[in-house]
Amino acid sequence: MKLCILGFGAVGRGVAKVISMKKEEMKEKYGLDLKITAVTDTSGAAIYDEGLDPNLLLKIKEDTGKISNYPEYGISKISNMEVLHKVDFDCLIEVTPTDIENGEPAKSHILKAFNDKKDVVTSNKGPLALSFRELAESAKENNVQLKYEASVGGAMPILNFAHDTLPSCNIKSIFGILNGTTNYILSRMAKEGSSYEQILKESQEMGIAETNPAQDVEGTDAACKVVILANSIMNRDVTLKDVEIVGISKITQEAISLARNEGYLIKLIGEISEDTLEVSPRLVREGSPFAVDGTLNVATLKTDLAEDVTVVGKGAGSIETASAILSDIISIYKSKE
Amino acid sequence: MKLCILGFGAVGRGVAKVISMKKEEMKEKYGLDLKITAVTDTSGAAIYDEGLDPNLLLKIKEDTGKISNYPEYGISKISNMEVLHKVDFDCLIEVTPTDIENGEPAKSHILKAFNDKKDVVTSNKGPLALSFRELAESAKENNVQLKYEASVGGAMPILNFAHDTLPSCNIKSIFGILNGTTNYILSRMAKEGSSYEQILKESQEMGIAETNPAQDVEGTDAACKVVILANSIMNRDVTLKDVEIVGISKITQEAISLARNEGYLIKLIGEISEDTLEVSPRLVREGSPFAVDGTLNVATLKTDLAEDVTVVGKGAGSIETASAILSDIISIYKSKE
Repeated sequence: MKLCILGFGAVGRGVAKVISMKKEEMKEKYGLDLKITAVTDTSGAAIYDEGLDPNLLLKIKEDTGKISNYPEYGISKISNMEVLHKVDFDCLIEVTPTDIENGEPAKSHILKAFNDKKDVVTSNKGPLALSFRELAESAKENNVQLKYEASVGGAMPILNFAHDTLPSCNIKSIFGILNGTTNYILSRMAKEGSSYEQILKESQEMGIAETNPAQDVEGTDAACKVVILANSIMNRDVTLKDVEIVGISKITQEAISLARNEGYLIKLIGEISEDTLEVSPRLVREGSPFAVDGTLNVATLKTDLAEDVTVVGKGAGSIETASAILSDIISIYKSKE
Repeated sequence: MKLCILGFGAVGRGVAKVISMKKEEMKEKYGLDLKITAVTDTSGAAIYDEGLDPNLLLKIKEDTGKISNYPEYGISKISNMEVLHKVDFDCLIEVTPTDIENGEPAKSHILKAFNDKKDVVTSNKGPLALSFRELAESAKENNVQLKYEASVGGAMPILNFAHDTLPSCNIKSIFGILNGTTNYILSRMAKEGSSYEQILKESQEMGIAETNPAQDVEGTDAACKVVILANSIMNRDVTLKDVEIVGISKITQEAISLARNEGYLIKLIGEISEDTLEVSPRLVREGSPFAVDGTLNVATLKTDLAEDVTVVGKGAGSIETASAILSDIISIYKSKE
C-alpha cells in the first residue's frame, strides 16, 4: 500500500514515526506492506515510487526543516496538487494545517484524490466540518473510502467505537469533552482556585494552549468535532454554522467553586442529539465519567439498550493521533482483502 | 438464525425482551431474522421450531414462574442436554446460573453445542474462567464461534473494543473496575463516611449486593473477568487459580479518608499485564477515568501508540447485558455473510 503524505507537521511526522516503528509488525500481523511514496511540506516534496525511508524523512526535517532536502528524491517548490498529479499512491494521508474558514487547501486535495480513485485518511477537521456531505458523496461516487478517526479526539477512538462496537444498539445522543486544552484549563481552575486568565497564561507558556487560543477557548475546535460526530454517527447533514457555541472565557472562579460545593465540575461539553447541536460549559457530576481532568477527551454514547457507554483517551499528541491514522489505513486495507 | 436459550433468569429474559424490541430492526438493518426455537428453565422447556413468541415467553414466566407452562409447546422435566439434542438451532445462548467451582453445567452445554457444529454466545463467567482454552480449542476444532462480550462488564463493550477498535496498537496491559457492587460500596463509603459493614447491609437491602456477597466483596467475580480478559485479549493461558485476589472487606473508613485527603480514591482494581494477574484494592487519582462511582465498570487498555484508552459502561442490568449478547449474535451473523 503506497501512501502520499501531504503535510509534515506534528501529525505527519507522527505518521512517519509510527510507520517506522510498525512496518514489520504490520507485515506479519496483517500482510500489509506500507510504503511512503511522497511527503510534502511548504518547502516542496520528497518523492520516490519505491518508498522513502521514514527515519531519513524525520532526520532531514529535523536537521534542515525542509523535506525538499531529502537526498536524491527531494524536489523544491512543487505544489501539493502537482505532487498528487505526479505520484504513484493508493491512499492519501491529508495532514496539512486545518482551515476552518473554507477547509482549503485540504478539501481540494481530498477531492482530487477521490477523482483519481484514491482512498483518503485525514485528521483535518476543516474540510470535514464545512463540507462533510460533499466529501462523503464524492467518495461514494468514486467508490473509494474516506476515513477520519484522528479528526475527533486524537487517540480516543470514538468513530470506530460508535460504528463497530455496539451493533445491537441505536445511538440516541452523544455528549463529549472534545477539546483537551479547555479541559486542562478548567481542571486546573477547579483544583487550584486560580483565575481563568492566570491558568490560560500558564497553559500558553507550557505549550498546552496556543498563542492565539481562540479556536480552543471559544469552542470552535470542539464545535468542528461536534459537526463530524453528528454527520458521521448520527447521520445528520450539518456544518459548523449549525452549532450553537459558548466558550469558557467567561467562566469565573466563583462559578467553579459554587459548583464544587455541590459536587459538580464545570466542563466544556459538546452535545449532539436529535434537536441539539451545541458546545457550552455545563455542570458534570463528580464521580461521573465526565469528571476526568488533564487534556483527556471523553465521549459518551447514549444508547437505547446499553444505556451510557463512554470512551476516554488522549485528545492530542503526535504519535497518539498517528495511531488513529494507522488504524484507519489498516481498516481500508482489510476491507479490500 | 435460530436461537436456543438455556436459562431464563435475568439475562435470559433480557435476551427475550431485546429480541422482542429489535426483531424488525434487525431484519431491516442487517437482514437478520431471529427466531427463538427453545427456552429452558428449571421447570423444563418451551420448544417450537417455527419460533416461540418472546412476549408470551416473558408473560408465562412472570405469571407462572415456569417456562414449561408455555401453551402447546411447553414440556415439563426435560433436561438442558435433552433440549440441545432435540432442538433445531444455529446458535446456543448459554445463560444458566454460573458456577465457579467447576463451570458446570454450562461447560457441558457449550461443548455439546460445539460438537453439534453450533455457535455459542454466553454471559457465563464460570466455564470461561475455568476452562477457557479447552472451550476455545473445541470451538476452533469444530469450526464454530464462541462469543462472550456479556461475561465481562455487562454492557461495557471491552472485548469487542479491544479486538476491533485499535488495530494499530499493541495492548500492553489492562486495568479495570470489573465489579459494580464493590464499586458502589466503596463509592458510598468515600462519600458518606459510613463503615463497610453499614454500606454493605444497605446495599443488600437495596438488592445491589447479594445476600451472600462473598463472590463480589472477596474479589472472585472480578477475578473471573481478569481471567477472561487475560485469555481473550492478552493471549494468556490462565485460570481462576492463577489470580492473586484481595477483596474489599478489610477496607476501613480511615483508609478511605486518608486517601481522599491526598486526592485519591480506593477502588477494587483488576490488573492484567505480562507478569501480573491480580485483583486488589488500589489508590486511583481523583480526576482519572477510574474515579467513577456507582455500579459503573471501567477498563483501561494501556497501548504502545495511543497511550491509555478507557471504556466505561454499565456492568450489569438485564437489558444492558442482553444488548451485549445481541451484539455478539449480530457479529456471528455478519461473519457468515
